[in-house]
Amino acid sequence: MKLLDIFAKLKGDMSRIEQELERSISFGDELLSETSLHLLKAGGKRLRPVFVLLAGKFGQYDLDKLTKVAVPLELIHMSSLVHDDVIDDASTRRGQLTVKSKWDNRIAMYTGDYIFGRALTIATELEDPFIHQMLSKSLVQMSIGEMEQIRYFFNTEQSIRDYLLRIRRKTALLIAISCQLGAAAAGADRVTVNRLYRYGYNVGMTFQIRDDMLDLFGTEKQIGKPPGSDIRQGNITLPVILALKDEKVREPLLEQIRIIREHNGNVDTKPAISLIKSSKGIQLADQLANDYTKKALAALKGLPGIGAKKNLTDIAHFVGKRNY
Amino acid sequence: MKLLDIFAKLKGDMSRIEQELERSISFGDELLSETSLHLLKAGGKRLRPVFVLLAGKFGQYDLDKLTKVAVPLELIHMSSLVHDDVIDDASTRRGQLTVKSKWDNRIAMYTGDYIFGRALTIATELEDPFIHQMLSKSLVQMSIGEMEQIRYFFNTEQSIRDYLLRIRRKTALLIAISCQLGAAAAGADRVTVNRLYRYGYNVGMTFQIRDDMLDLFGTEKQIGKPPGSDIRQGNITLPVILALKDEKVREPLLEQIRIIREHNGNVDTKPAISLIKSSKGIQLADQLANDYTKKALAALKGLPGIGAKKNLTDIAHFVGKRNY
Repeated sequence: MKLLDIFAKLKGDMSRIEQELERSISFGDELLSETSLHLLKAGGKRLRPVFVLLAGKFGQYDLDKLTKVAVPLELIHMSSLVHDDVIDDASTRRGQLTVKSKWDNRIAMYTGDYIFGRALTIATELEDPFIHQMLSKSLVQMSIGEMEQIRYFFNTEQSIRDYLLRIRRKTALLIAISCQLGAAAAGADRVTVNRLYRYGYNVGMTFQIRDDMLDLFGTEKQIGKPPGSDIRQGNITLPVILALKDEKVREPLLEQIRIIREHNGNVDTKPAISLIKSSKGIQLADQLANDYTKKALAALKGLPGIGAKKNLTDIAHFVGKRNY
Repeated sequence: MKLLDIFAKLKGDMSRIEQELERSISFGDELLSETSLHLLKAGGKRLRPVFVLLAGKFGQYDLDKLTKVAVPLELIHMSSLVHDDVIDDASTRRGQLTVKSKWDNRIAMYTGDYIFGRALTIATELEDPFIHQMLSKSLVQMSIGEMEQIRYFFNTEQSIRDYLLRIRRKTALLIAISCQLGAAAAGADRVTVNRLYRYGYNVGMTFQIRDDMLDLFGTEKQIGKPPGSDIRQGNITLPVILALKDEKVREPLLEQIRIIREHNGNVDTKPAISLIKSSKGIQLADQLANDYTKKALAALKGLPGIGAKKNLTDIAHFVGKRNY
């Protein structure tokens, strides 16, 4: 089941955004357009544009204006993915070759810079300083989040709080801002804007926790890249942190992580994954993800009962159970 | 002789900008502040802030406002340098270790992203959409320029025009925008703003041509890194393009470039540099640089005869003779 099936009504508007995404990066240097288009065509759930459009329903829905918010947000997301791939050893994402492995690291880096620049250029057409402020804030926070991820590589002493702060910056903030700016661009009142921000933040936290669980427990078909890629590069995610708190699992898991580190990730991660699966970590991670879903739903409570509210509720449930 | 000696009068305002530069990057993650500060302390001529301040003298000079333009411009320049170093094999810049060699490539990449994000965050405080537009445009153009540099690596058939278009994007545009936004932020009239843009553009072109000449003909002490680093990584600059047009030099130079390429740059570049030196290329490159200097001076003609005009004239001459 694809996320888009939930809101068939948005399809027309989403294809307009898809067109604009394509147009926005077909500009300038041939190679940059080619690498950017490759990245775009590799797919993705377009979660951020969907949130912009749905949040826009809580004000004066203006597709032109919302497109100019949705496109930069998706481009910022894409540019962070391509920079992620530079440091990540995985050669595929969503089942497609990454820019880094199809071309090279330098090209992937400048593709990210270019896409980010195009994102801002489109956003500045709106002439709303608040939107520019939030977008630049998101870049700062995302790069801090990415840097902290690197700093905490193979750090087996990190706390749940370290992890949550990191995914807040890396993922939740941009989704929160998508909901916030969609509502703001539609001229929704401040209370509504803040509720949608809170909704997006909590859905984003659930999303990343589920994503990190999938990376360990999903199949290559489900996730479009080999499972265990996080732990292989040293990215210690929530299920691992929680499993390390399980006395029965802690010592053998530390040993497995030591082996992975010693071989720079070029070893079988199945023993580590089995240990994590056998620990109490899974249930606890599940519970934490569910708590964020509940908070997301609670944030929607005071909003008017329009169709978009139902859609956002469905998405929260969907993301909460994410196993696609 | 340092550039700053030319305009001792700006020293107070420049130290305010230096303070703000430092403050602007001491924010968030410890490691990011450390890498960014390392980059800042490694020096640099602060040419872009100087242009902002001098251009600001042609309107209502407001240091607060000009600082909020100058700091982002210098940060954008810094972020492009650190991304440059990721792809460049040189391990020093300005005689200091690069972020990439002191830490690593991933850290250098996120340091660039972070500094760029901070640049925009500070710029958005000004709430002037025109400034945001020009800054995002500069990022797009700079990444196109960098990408084209990579695409033209070891391309010995490229034209002078290919080279000029590239350095226009890579360097001249940001200097032009520095002059333009300094004047615009000071509320100067449109004709003045355009004149200063043209001045900056032409000075920027001269600057990059001189920089590329220095990379070949300077000493390690002068340029803070080993000479020949451009040709070593395949970056074919103006003196090389011109030398390849010299019948006496063409064949042996092509052979040297082939050897450099075959050994991934790990060979002595002295034979290639001697060949370029012996060609007619140097005089032609010199002449082209001088032509741009003349255009820069011509752009200043209609401006009022204030002290800043004299300073800009001096800088154009200085950059034109650049051999520091």
